Amino acid sequence: MKFPEWMASVQRRVEQALEQRLPAAQLAPQRLHQAMRYATLGGGKRVRPLLAFAAGEMAGATPERLDAIACALESIHVYSLVHDDMPCMDDDVLRRGKPTVHVQYDEATALLVGDALQTLAFEQLSTLGLFEDAGNQLRAVALLAKASGSRGMAGGQAIDLDSVGKSITREELEFMHIHKTGALIRAAVMLGALAGTTDDATLERLNHFGKCIGLLFQVVDDILDEVADTATLGKTAGKDAAQDKPTYVSIIGLTPARTLARELAEEAHGTLAPLGAAAQRLKEITDYIVSRPF
Amino acid sequence: MKFPEWMASVQRRVEQALEQRLPAAQLAPQRLHQAMRYATLGGGKRVRPLLAFAAGEMAGATPERLDAIACALESIHVYSLVHDDMPCMDDDVLRRGKPTVHVQYDEATALLVGDALQTLAFEQLSTLGLFEDAGNQLRAVALLAKASGSRGMAGGQAIDLDSVGKSITREELEFMHIHKTGALIRAAVMLGALAGTTDDATLERLNHFGKCIGLLFQVVDDILDEVADTATLGKTAGKDAAQDKPTYVSIIGLTPARTLARELAEEAHGTLAPLGAAAQRLKEITDYIVSRPF
Repeated sequence: MKFPEWMASVQRRVEQALEQRLPAAQLAPQRLHQAMRYATLGGGKRVRPLLAFAAGEMAGATPERLDAIACALESIHVYSLVHDDMPCMDDDVLRRGKPTVHVQYDEATALLVGDALQTLAFEQLSTLGLFEDAGNQLRAVALLAKASGSRGMAGGQAIDLDSVGKSITREELEFMHIHKTGALIRAAVMLGALAGTTDDATLERLNHFGKCIGLLFQVVDDILDEVADTATLGKTAGKDAAQDKPTYVSIIGLTPARTLARELAEEAHGTLAPLGAAAQRLKEITDYIVSRPF
Repeated sequence: MKFPEWMASVQRRVEQALEQRLPAAQLAPQRLHQAMRYATLGGGKRVRPLLAFAAGEMAGATPERLDAIACALESIHVYSLVHDDMPCMDDDVLRRGKPTVHVQYDEATALLVGDALQTLAFEQLSTLGLFEDAGNQLRAVALLAKASGSRGMAGGQAIDLDSVGKSITREELEFMHIHKTGALIRAAVMLGALAGTTDDATLERLNHFGKCIGLLFQVVDDILDEVADTATLGKTAGKDAAQDKPTYVSIIGLTPARTLARELAEEAHGTLAPLGAAAQRLKEITDYIVSRPF
């Protein structure tokens, strides 16, 4: 299967898995469940699920197990978007081409949607019998928690808020992104792998790959925020500059940011090389990320 | 040991466990970690930890395991308080006798504090090696997730918001409270028990006890909101009536609410009776809850 077909098939599969695993819209409390579905379904590139499937297929995980992992990852990701968009944070009105949750519903609902989606992620991942080895499954739960909390994604968000309007160094910017975006992207790769293997050498290699790809993803995002338009992004473009947020583009400039993206992609490829043809999808995702239109 | 001493010793122990398990205030991101500690430490009756310790001691769980469970429960509880107090929800300025997190810090920090405390709960409970049996530990994680999410605590909060200013029946009020407060209280009893036993009959009995005590706790809370003053409560008194929120007092009246509290306490005692002297602490907590000054 060619990469675009594989990507489309995983995206369809994940959409269906989310559709089934999110509480039904007619279940009480209905407004909350409707809003959780509104926030999660029908949009997004599903980058974290794609990484989990790519790493999981390489490691021999079953698709059913990867469905649950993909839903957990996407629930965490969407919860963070819903909360980040709220008026007290980024105050944004558009996400994935639709009004944000607090605009479509209200602020209290957006707050609860994010809260309940985070819980749903841990509910998905702790489903009994999901892994043959319960110890390995616990390791996956612990990994997701660590990547999402105050020393991971939520912590990165706090550093981001703190940095608005401040002059920060490239090292500080990198520290922020490794937490804010990188931690969950790395977790996506690791959770997919953990669902199929316990080989430490493979996990260690994929951990380094996850770190490269997480940073790569953010550098490309910063470039896109600078050069793409709102229609292409499905979210408000030029927001970072408008909010005086430090980005790779504002700190090192557009051309060096592009060079950095290519270097990170090369490092990611180099890390995957010893894994041979089995790592094909991970290589293709790397190329896909770096080739997003800019 | 008499009950008041036992209660004080568990509360001290839990305070210390939280102190140790919350990220240090000097760890980056510092403002977030400071605010997480501000929200969690030095206050609260620690009702959920007390229930977990009482059920756990009965079931033969080790204190170390109960520390982690108590911290997980209290992290979930505090996250819900921090988010509930925000301007888009109850908009409250006082909690446990101190300014609420969004007043002391800011709204964005309060949002992230709640988010990161929820994650911390799952991180605590998924710590490798916490239970001898990883399958049983996963069961505990799944139980906490179910009790906290859209079909549990967060869902109850959504129903609560939806009911403001509306006339609801006693059945609807009970449905709301079983979710909003009851689910996590029941989870506290069950997690404590699960840390020491897998006996289905005991777990089933404690599950019913947890349901009674959860509802009892809320009935008493509604009575206290009506009759106690702000200084005694450590939070704003008379808030429910001021916000036109349905309560047991507003729906069935003060005297019938007091009668209901006594009936629920009796049912809780009846459920514990077959467990004999081992259930002593659970019986004492029941009496403690029903005897809170009203």
